[in-house]
Amino acid sequence: MKRFKVTIQYDGLNFYGFQRQIDLRTVQGEIEKVLFRIFKTEVTLHASGRTDAGVHATGQVIHFDVETNMDEKALKRAMNTYLPKDIHVVETALVTSEFHARFSSIKKEYRYFINTGGYEVFSRNHVYQFNRELDIEKIKEASKLFIGKHNFYNFCTNEEGSVKDYIRTIESIEVNVNEGIIEFIIIGDGFLRNMIRMMIGALLEIGLNRKGKEYISRKLGDDFTRSNYKVPGLGLYLTRVYY
Amino acid sequence: MKRFKVTIQYDGLNFYGFQRQIDLRTVQGEIEKVLFRIFKTEVTLHASGRTDAGVHATGQVIHFDVETNMDEKALKRAMNTYLPKDIHVVETALVTSEFHARFSSIKKEYRYFINTGGYEVFSRNHVYQFNRELDIEKIKEASKLFIGKHNFYNFCTNEEGSVKDYIRTIESIEVNVNEGIIEFIIIGDGFLRNMIRMMIGALLEIGLNRKGKEYISRKLGDDFTRSNYKVPGLGLYLTRVYY
Repeated sequence: MKRFKVTIQYDGLNFYGFQRQIDLRTVQGEIEKVLFRIFKTEVTLHASGRTDAGVHATGQVIHFDVETNMDEKALKRAMNTYLPKDIHVVETALVTSEFHARFSSIKKEYRYFINTGGYEVFSRNHVYQFNRELDIEKIKEASKLFIGKHNFYNFCTNEEGSVKDYIRTIESIEVNVNEGIIEFIIIGDGFLRNMIRMMIGALLEIGLNRKGKEYISRKLGDDFTRSNYKVPGLGLYLTRVYY
Repeated sequence: MKRFKVTIQYDGLNFYGFQRQIDLRTVQGEIEKVLFRIFKTEVTLHASGRTDAGVHATGQVIHFDVETNMDEKALKRAMNTYLPKDIHVVETALVTSEFHARFSSIKKEYRYFINTGGYEVFSRNHVYQFNRELDIEKIKEASKLFIGKHNFYNFCTNEEGSVKDYIRTIESIEVNVNEGIIEFIIIGDGFLRNMIRMMIGALLEIGLNRKGKEYISRKLGDDFTRSNYKVPGLGLYLTRVYY
């Protein structure tokens, strides 16, 4: 039995998220179909984590076990031959059974892109079009409040009871602006459902001067009412999983 | 009666080309629907020229006449309110009846993009994914053969008899390479159907060392058999119309 670690990119636009669902097109479903085609047997994959509908990845990591003579180079070729055009294998590696795409991961990097210049038809499904004046300095300053270990209950939409621990650690948030495109680079040990989209939603409220940065301190503190602002999934990318 | 000149961008992916067709989604059809909605009367638009299915534009120019109190700023706002997400008005101007989007145009600029690096899911509908080694110097050198006034019969697919004059003048071709992306910038006084896609198809054959540059000289000369190579429309953009 071999265990393969596979790094993939996908365009979230035409998927109902990552996780396999009956009768719906998902990233996991499409990849498992291809693995069945290659190996003539059912192969179940494990991912570093799910991504929601519309969310993209350039560095999602999966692993699976399979009885095969194929090496990692042949696997990459075979997968890219059969995968649909919106999923692509970037890298394959043979790993030991110690490795687990989800449990071995120590941190993850996500990026979020916002176009504050004029509306642009070509990037409309991949960059959030937000043609408003933003105070970038305020956004940068406020973003630092997220860094560190906090209770992110107010910045997620998990159904009650499904998650027991809302404590997560954000290692860094970088905010870059280039020709009207804002790029957020967020590294943390784990992320709750919609967490990044709600964090950035709050930052935009601050950048619009509709909230002060104490809004974030309050929501990370004892005020347990969830934040109301969420940016769309289409601007979000899982860019790297660290092991 | 006012005449408006309107510069538009569109993502060619989900259109059956530019020109109005019954029951098919076209750029002209969508814009005329919006004009009807704004002006409550049928407005026929004239474009600088058609673009084929899948071909994009960042600087297509149209004009139309309409009886209205609206100024150009209000028109831009109204059009962008109602247009679908894959068409966007970049600029509007009030012009005299001397101006004609097609007949007043003196030259046009098109760009074509090729990704020669690894396959990239996000740009797959907007950049031709051509993961092959190309001799860029040969392409640059051969591209210069197109410059000037030539008979482009062999570099077009017009049905016989529909076009009388195959003589066109190419003013310049620029070839830029940046991080594996090749950008062709082509300026000419007019272009026949599929002309740019066939010119670039021939240049790729030369870049692959499957043809020598005399292939182009021959096809521009007396050998009246059409060139066989054509790149897909998805990498092509009408970027500017000069008046």
